[in-house]
Amino acid sequence: MIKIAVDAMGGDFLCDTTVKGSMQAIQEFKDIEITLYGDEEKIKPLLTNSERIKVVHTPKYVDMGEHDPVSYIRHNPDASLCMALKAGREKEVDAVVSAGPTQCVIVGAHLIVRKLKQMRRVALCPIIPSVDGRGRLMLDVGANIELRPEHILDLAVFATTVSHEILGVDKPKVGLLNIGTEKGKGRQVDQETYDLLEQSSEISFYGNVETKEILTSECDIFITDGFTGNMVMKTMEGTAKAMGKMLEEEIKSSFGGILGYLFMKKNLKRFKKRMDASEIGGAMIVGIPVPVIKAHGSSDAYAFKNAIRQARSMVEKDLINKVVSALPKKENA
Amino acid sequence: MIKIAVDAMGGDFLCDTTVKGSMQAIQEFKDIEITLYGDEEKIKPLLTNSERIKVVHTPKYVDMGEHDPVSYIRHNPDASLCMALKAGREKEVDAVVSAGPTQCVIVGAHLIVRKLKQMRRVALCPIIPSVDGRGRLMLDVGANIELRPEHILDLAVFATTVSHEILGVDKPKVGLLNIGTEKGKGRQVDQETYDLLEQSSEISFYGNVETKEILTSECDIFITDGFTGNMVMKTMEGTAKAMGKMLEEEIKSSFGGILGYLFMKKNLKRFKKRMDASEIGGAMIVGIPVPVIKAHGSSDAYAFKNAIRQARSMVEKDLINKVVSALPKKENA
Repeated sequence: MIKIAVDAMGGDFLCDTTVKGSMQAIQEFKDIEITLYGDEEKIKPLLTNSERIKVVHTPKYVDMGEHDPVSYIRHNPDASLCMALKAGREKEVDAVVSAGPTQCVIVGAHLIVRKLKQMRRVALCPIIPSVDGRGRLMLDVGANIELRPEHILDLAVFATTVSHEILGVDKPKVGLLNIGTEKGKGRQVDQETYDLLEQSSEISFYGNVETKEILTSECDIFITDGFTGNMVMKTMEGTAKAMGKMLEEEIKSSFGGILGYLFMKKNLKRFKKRMDASEIGGAMIVGIPVPVIKAHGSSDAYAFKNAIRQARSMVEKDLINKVVSALPKKENA
Repeated sequence: MIKIAVDAMGGDFLCDTTVKGSMQAIQEFKDIEITLYGDEEKIKPLLTNSERIKVVHTPKYVDMGEHDPVSYIRHNPDASLCMALKAGREKEVDAVVSAGPTQCVIVGAHLIVRKLKQMRRVALCPIIPSVDGRGRLMLDVGANIELRPEHILDLAVFATTVSHEILGVDKPKVGLLNIGTEKGKGRQVDQETYDLLEQSSEISFYGNVETKEILTSECDIFITDGFTGNMVMKTMEGTAKAMGKMLEEEIKSSFGGILGYLFMKKNLKRFKKRMDASEIGGAMIVGIPVPVIKAHGSSDAYAFKNAIRQARSMVEKDLINKVVSALPKKENA
């Protein structure tokens, strides 16, 4: 049995979606057990099927607007997120899933589960959509404002293992996000990272990739520092959302549009689905010894179920051990 | 008369679009004169109306794939781009328009026209689309890999004048692109820039803006360093293009889709137009004493005409002098 801890109170909808998503996951995967951390009084009425699901009660949970993650995590060991992560550290569970505030999940993973001693940084790695429908990995998207080339190499090795084991890519290509494709482009750190990745035998380096190619590139992994990655990911998110809104406005603006909509309703639904994060699961916290998945804050039950599926998959494939043996040996581990 | 120099050989289509765009501009604006720099033999057959248009012949022009802009600009004063820019420096014309390779236009503006002595950096500033249809300014998107806070303040002052004079915004709001909205977010340079912009009396500072809000924000100007701005702009471009492609694929994938398309053809055309850069014109080279507009490399005649309109508008509004008087006084100018 694969044991998964769920922060039942994380996310915009609290236990409404996490409990339903957990029950869906239990239905779909016969080899998992779930522990829900959260307010028993609120969870129990929603839990219509408690087969292989248990509840550990705690009334406290992180507010989605929490501004001081470090202080919060340090002073609230009894918050649902912290208890779920502690169960991960203590090996009571094999993986942890939370839709709580991103920085709190990252800081919590770092302070409570603690970093893999073989890795120098913890990073946030979502699976992003692409035109060909195959998910790509992007990291770091927000755990580290700045990263040195050797940190980026560690992350590339981690992502290569994830891409191979979880997404089934034979020899994942790693692209360095940059302002031009030629070698020598970008900041000092990008140039040094290029050199290091090019020399590495642990990954298959593709070279620089411009962000205008991010949805169409043949690369499997996009790598950069957490500041840049965060800016790029949120630009994709905002552009997709704004374009969806504009399309809707234009369609609704005339009778022809509404009529046309009736004919191509299914087509537009498929279009929407192709850019939809809920199909994919959540973002991985990379660099810690336990799989931790950060589901989108606005996840519905289906998206949350997919995040649990992703956690299960990482455990099933023994991902962490595979990453550890793939990482370059450090002189000072 | 407003005199505009056009690099007739810049862009993916060489003089095919620049000559047609110039003739359209001449038709639309009775107060402009255009000088086309380029290959007379290729230009003349396209120039069916040479009223207020003259040609200065030079057979040489920059290749769109030019990899070493600095060396190229230094060693090819007779290239069409360089001659157009030189006419700007010598005050033979009031503004310059080119669809040539971005870095060559920036480097050329810097080396040939030369920086305004009141500004510390040259920057690239496109007008980007938004959900409400009103264009926003974003800078720097690629002239400087790194910028110090005082450089960013100069750029914000320049953009404020452009937004007010050219886009007609009463009191343009300047947003700093960052990974979170609260003060204190981002890299050291972002935090220092925040403090400086907040204290400035020359601009109206809005605070930090996340890139997911870039198409919907109430800000009029988005400011950041050239590395980040380039990554963000190209992400918008790539996401919009990929989504357009996916929408087309989905519509074409079934009979219902094609039928629906016939009903909402006009709606989809308007949708496309809302994200279309050719409606807007080109990107400004900020920080030099002559308006220089970099049109998109793939500009058609209509887009190129709009770039000329923008150049005309900057001259008509006496933009450069207004910027100079708005800039903070420097101790060492």
